[in-house]
Amino acid sequence: MKCGFVVFNDLTALDFIGVYDPVTRLKTMGFIPDLSWDVCARENRILDSSGLSFEANMVGKSLSSYDLVIVPGGFGTRSLVNDKGFIDWLKTAASCPLKASVCTGSLLWGACGFLAGKQATTHPSAYEDLAKYCETVKHERIVDEGNIITARGVTAGIDLGLYLCGKIAGETAREKIARQMDYSK
Amino acid sequence: MKCGFVVFNDLTALDFIGVYDPVTRLKTMGFIPDLSWDVCARENRILDSSGLSFEANMVGKSLSSYDLVIVPGGFGTRSLVNDKGFIDWLKTAASCPLKASVCTGSLLWGACGFLAGKQATTHPSAYEDLAKYCETVKHERIVDEGNIITARGVTAGIDLGLYLCGKIAGETAREKIARQMDYSK
Repeated sequence: MKCGFVVFNDLTALDFIGVYDPVTRLKTMGFIPDLSWDVCARENRILDSSGLSFEANMVGKSLSSYDLVIVPGGFGTRSLVNDKGFIDWLKTAASCPLKASVCTGSLLWGACGFLAGKQATTHPSAYEDLAKYCETVKHERIVDEGNIITARGVTAGIDLGLYLCGKIAGETAREKIARQMDYSK
Repeated sequence: MKCGFVVFNDLTALDFIGVYDPVTRLKTMGFIPDLSWDVCARENRILDSSGLSFEANMVGKSLSSYDLVIVPGGFGTRSLVNDKGFIDWLKTAASCPLKASVCTGSLLWGACGFLAGKQATTHPSAYEDLAKYCETVKHERIVDEGNIITARGVTAGIDLGLYLCGKIAGETAREKIARQMDYSK
């Protein structure tokens, strides 16, 4: 199983790491031994909205080979929805069986056209922005439309990660990972 | 106000980013405009326990000038408690008015001797390891001993970050930051 974590300038680091932690535990805790992942971007190195840098190991290549592609949010999404080069690159995930987003990352999937006719969510401050891309904006923590799952704001990335763990590896795996993360919700 | 985020090889990325997000929002949301921070390490580049790299911008220098020093946990702590060079470097934070840790980061403060006679917490799997460094191991989410604050496992880093926001900038700031993070606890 191959997972791609998309990153870009001016992302919210916790959107990325909140879902990265539980999903990568699927491998490190032995539930999905063949899980592999890449940090995917259009540049080698990106900066989050507070100046922290992340390195990508997959730069500018098609996302089509991933089983799961996860997009974080952040202020960078506001300009990227109008960045044809970025959106065309993200559209290479069209055939991936599972796509997910945290926070305003759903605006990026929306700009790809992948939320048309679907229900979705985003950061509460961006509900209006999301409305033009989907059929119904839900105010729920996680909205699962089968092949595309959107999560609400920042910390909902942890909920998304655990939800994906349950979906991919089952409820027992999800519970053990949540316990190891000392997640008390 | 100067904050140092300590990083090291084989850390848990979410321990670091869970507290980095709310604390850096003190500046980006305008509550502490003069807040600055460094990512502090003994090497330019470190890898988390799943291979993600972080860059440090403060390498090997004394930590004594920081107002707040925050240490994450992770499997790397298990060998670092016996790494004299690392512990001697961390001890340069002795005079800092506020020190904090997430998860097994408290073992590192313990190895510095800073928890002697105090109450502290850590990841539930490391309670026994912590016991030799402090007076009482508490099973609570956050243990505040005034100049040193320890948080429990992984996701407790978010609780620690919000707790620090309240301590540094007041309850209203803490509430606004929690809302912006869509933190529903």
